[in-house]
Amino acid sequence: MSFEDYFNRIVENVNINIEKYLKGDIQELYEASFYLFKAGGKRLRPLILVSSADLLGGDLNRAYLAGASVEVLHTFTLIHDDIMDEDTTRRGMPTVHVKWGIPMAILAGDLLHAKAFEILNEAFRGMSSNKITRAFEIFTKAIIIISEGQALDMQFEDKVTVSEEEYLDMIKRKTAMLFSSSAALGGLIATDNEKEIQALADYGLNLGISFQIVDDILGLIADEKELGKPVYSDIREGKKTLLVIKTMKEATDEEKKILLKALGNKNASKDELITAAEIIRKYSLEYAYNKAEEYARKAIEALESIDWKNDEAGKALKYLAEFTVKRRK
Amino acid sequence: MSFEDYFNRIVENVNINIEKYLKGDIQELYEASFYLFKAGGKRLRPLILVSSADLLGGDLNRAYLAGASVEVLHTFTLIHDDIMDEDTTRRGMPTVHVKWGIPMAILAGDLLHAKAFEILNEAFRGMSSNKITRAFEIFTKAIIIISEGQALDMQFEDKVTVSEEEYLDMIKRKTAMLFSSSAALGGLIATDNEKEIQALADYGLNLGISFQIVDDILGLIADEKELGKPVYSDIREGKKTLLVIKTMKEATDEEKKILLKALGNKNASKDELITAAEIIRKYSLEYAYNKAEEYARKAIEALESIDWKNDEAGKALKYLAEFTVKRRK
Repeated sequence: MSFEDYFNRIVENVNINIEKYLKGDIQELYEASFYLFKAGGKRLRPLILVSSADLLGGDLNRAYLAGASVEVLHTFTLIHDDIMDEDTTRRGMPTVHVKWGIPMAILAGDLLHAKAFEILNEAFRGMSSNKITRAFEIFTKAIIIISEGQALDMQFEDKVTVSEEEYLDMIKRKTAMLFSSSAALGGLIATDNEKEIQALADYGLNLGISFQIVDDILGLIADEKELGKPVYSDIREGKKTLLVIKTMKEATDEEKKILLKALGNKNASKDELITAAEIIRKYSLEYAYNKAEEYARKAIEALESIDWKNDEAGKALKYLAEFTVKRRK
Repeated sequence: MSFEDYFNRIVENVNINIEKYLKGDIQELYEASFYLFKAGGKRLRPLILVSSADLLGGDLNRAYLAGASVEVLHTFTLIHDDIMDEDTTRRGMPTVHVKWGIPMAILAGDLLHAKAFEILNEAFRGMSSNKITRAFEIFTKAIIIISEGQALDMQFEDKVTVSEEEYLDMIKRKTAMLFSSSAALGGLIATDNEKEIQALADYGLNLGISFQIVDDILGLIADEKELGKPVYSDIREGKKTLLVIKTMKEATDEEKKILLKALGNKNASKDELITAAEIIRKYSLEYAYNKAEEYARKAIEALESIDWKNDEAGKALKYLAEFTVKRRK
């Protein structure tokens, strides 16, 4: 089977579960909740989860459910983050709060949050009591840490200096944690071997860090249409990305002045944003790509420490780590 | 032991668990999350949960944890509802979004939502796999239905006519469901007997309906300071309470006109609100109190259908149903 076929089968089955669980009799609420799933998305977290289960010979039907669960959880965080960050476009469409208003968007996110737990509960139904408790432990810990990461991300917007270390701590929580938990949950479906589950968690964590660094890069260099959200919005919101942190360390005083005028300035002109982005690219693009590659390599190393039961799944997970760096959206 | 001592012991133990689980290293986020617990609250849902477990001889330490879980869940819904309803005061204090801003309030609610699951997971750790799955089933269903109820409540604000039946359906979802689930979870800690668990769920559901009707009444007649939130805000927000529904059916055309001018009018003057409230009281107060008493009686009937293992807990639960109608805040 080609990678494409392998991944398509996962996405199809995960989507079936998402659709099945996102039905209810309050039309507007369920429409607002389901909207972003229809708009697209790479389903990267379910791909990691299901492939991780498959790698160790786990039950794929359970994995498809757990995969739906992490995607539903991820979507809840997107809806709420878009309100907090005042983002107006996502996946090439108006964000949920732009379309339905903030109250309905808060509620749609809350519904998805609960639905994610409902689906996870089904994924582990009938397994041992220890395993069920462990699954919920991984899942709740992920959400708690993701919330902490989002709080840090917001705090950093008002902070002039953020170190690379602080940035890495933030993206580990905000982004990489759910990648890590997805891989671990996939492993948990297949095995009780904590060492293998931990290796999968490491794979996911490093992949997630790599993913977020590339996400920050794409916010500066991607084609806006392809990306589905405005480029430069990170600059306007004053996000302290790895690229900004590196640039603030390396740029001339003159360039820093230009940068500081655009960073976090909601009224920055297109020209100011473009100039700021040029400066950032000059100082940090290569550095950031190297970092992203370094973490992708670490992910692959963790993966290769495991005794694969299924070569196809192992290669697919390896491909995901490589794809994360190479992607253009 | 007096009712007061019985309830105080529960509240103390539940509070210890809430405090224990609401610690973390991102100060502002945890402060915003913990704030409403410090501000007070009756801990009614934990009281129901723990007494229900106690009624059937359940493990009280598990019940204290599960009690903390439902209170944390309830508090998440308060924080998010206050944003959606634009309420500025709760428990005599500024609401979370007034104090920390909407983004942090959304995030604090999300954190509590996840924390509620984390604590529930601990409450059932080591019990049978079936019981754990059932607990999460009850809990997730509750949150899904509460979200649906909040959506209905918001929809009703823009709807001119709401029937009593629609109103009851809404408050069952928005309020009574969590009372019902609290009682059922308490039962689940103690027994596998589905009939007893269902009777407890019925007790909680009817108590919850009674509670919400009285809540709507208190919003019209309570002392503002004692209540801890502005009276008449339901009128200003256009909430279709049982009292408003009954009044719109019974009042003269002249009175209906006055009422419609104030209902949902964010700029209504104090005088307009007072006059509207007088009309509502005239037509609906007795009716609403009778309804509240009717549901409290149904709650007690459900309770008495159970074979009490602990008389003290049974009497406490009965008292809660009576107190719900009699309370003044």
